[in-house]
Amino acid sequence: MRFVKGHGTENDFIVLPDFDGHLDLTPALVRALCDRRAGLGADGILRVVRTERVDSEAEPAVAALAPQAEWFMDYRNSDGSVAEMCGNGVRVFGLFLVQSGLVLTGHTASGAPSGAFPVATRAGARMLTLNPDWTLTATMGRAEGPEGAVDVVTPGRRGTGVSVSTGNPHVVTFVSDLAEAGPLLEAPVLTPTPPDGANVEFVVERGPAHIAMRVFERGVGETRSCGTGACAAAVAAVARAGDRDEWVYRVDVPGGQLQVSRTADGEILLTGPAVLLASGELSQDWVTSRV
Amino acid sequence: MRFVKGHGTENDFIVLPDFDGHLDLTPALVRALCDRRAGLGADGILRVVRTERVDSEAEPAVAALAPQAEWFMDYRNSDGSVAEMCGNGVRVFGLFLVQSGLVLTGHTASGAPSGAFPVATRAGARMLTLNPDWTLTATMGRAEGPEGAVDVVTPGRRGTGVSVSTGNPHVVTFVSDLAEAGPLLEAPVLTPTPPDGANVEFVVERGPAHIAMRVFERGVGETRSCGTGACAAAVAAVARAGDRDEWVYRVDVPGGQLQVSRTADGEILLTGPAVLLASGELSQDWVTSRV
Repeated sequence: MRFVKGHGTENDFIVLPDFDGHLDLTPALVRALCDRRAGLGADGILRVVRTERVDSEAEPAVAALAPQAEWFMDYRNSDGSVAEMCGNGVRVFGLFLVQSGLVLTGHTASGAPSGAFPVATRAGARMLTLNPDWTLTATMGRAEGPEGAVDVVTPGRRGTGVSVSTGNPHVVTFVSDLAEAGPLLEAPVLTPTPPDGANVEFVVERGPAHIAMRVFERGVGETRSCGTGACAAAVAAVARAGDRDEWVYRVDVPGGQLQVSRTADGEILLTGPAVLLASGELSQDWVTSRV
Repeated sequence: MRFVKGHGTENDFIVLPDFDGHLDLTPALVRALCDRRAGLGADGILRVVRTERVDSEAEPAVAALAPQAEWFMDYRNSDGSVAEMCGNGVRVFGLFLVQSGLVLTGHTASGAPSGAFPVATRAGARMLTLNPDWTLTATMGRAEGPEGAVDVVTPGRRGTGVSVSTGNPHVVTFVSDLAEAGPLLEAPVLTPTPPDGANVEFVVERGPAHIAMRVFERGVGETRSCGTGACAAAVAAVARAGDRDEWVYRVDVPGGQLQVSRTADGEILLTGPAVLLASGELSQDWVTSRV
């Protein structure tokens, strides 16, 4: 079994090329691969499958994307569960497609890379753009919110946040200093409790159209970056500063720097780096003993 | 740059084959490789070098081992510092030598592997034995102690430990339940303070010649396993049970099971599993940008 290791703003992934969809990627194998001591270690798995090879009975919505998007990003969380979409993962997935020659991209007159291609995900087809500085931009759909008022309690702090949905649920709360939220060893207590829980972003304003954040991901803990969380934080910051239709925000996360923008038709775009640092092969004995 | 990823009782390592000693393994590159989000992730690096290729001016004691041990284990901690020896790492190192055909091992009449070979380390030459069940046994030198009385304070508990040196300093304290030590998010407070600090083992007796432990490693935090710590814990447990000259103890650690014994001439032996799960190549661009 071949693999590639990569990250986007230190949200890290194991890319598994499985072009014809033969791999039996069980939850147990996902957990074993993502284990940071006994396995390779990652926040999630990005299986690379030709969309036309997706089982149309098991995943009809994905299989139906075959005419639109040649490659399907089968994203799995490190706990083995299936996920719809990952804003940092899709850039790593896209860079893998580019560097493997699985999608065709071009060059600008000055030799910089340039190109755009669709990727099938469980959240629908997403468009990826390779920028001249080797960052990638992904379409992230539309955001809902901000709305409501949610009490956010962490050890030593009691604040109020707003709800924003960017495919998954977020609560964004503004702080004067990122240290204010404390060490975040446990999930912030949210009142009223969102039915499916929520990721919580602690956001500080750094300047015009520039914020920095920390994020606590539900079921995971504090992480170095969260793509949909950066989008939610920017949406909340724009609303706080006075709503505009089109905007570009810089969002600093512990693992690096992202850019979030909104187009005139309401689509959220997430731009950031992607890194592929190693490739190799898993021991077949080890894989067999983990399936 | 080629690599192999492996672990021993979930103490994990990146093996870097560098037979002729050409690799410029800077502390910055070690830290980048061991970074669990932006790199491959590991507790440490095991560089594999022919002992005769070690620079005799930089490491005279190691170079002098060339007639005794063909292969040198250049161990680095994840923070980039040089270390003398690692009880779990040396088994992973040994299994790499065996599986790569770099040392010759034989088979028992029933086909099980069998063999013994020396490995050069900064703590001197160590003998490794490949056992028929594919575990490996390493000679760990002599232990000093237990001696003294050290107060060990963790949130919610105040106890007393004994000092044991197994190449590096340990304080071993016996508990009635491993949960007693609490979450161990910060270093236990030791009084009197050991001059170079110490790893702290919390040990519970499970039965005759059978203990279980948790360990807080100085400068690291709570880990899944510590080879020298398991040796120290067994030495303290033997002394507590009434000193004997030769003994065999089972030591359960969070990451698996180890066996510690003492031979008639006072040598401590550590036996446990080793796993090599993946091999591959690092992106040269990535390596270059990290050196």
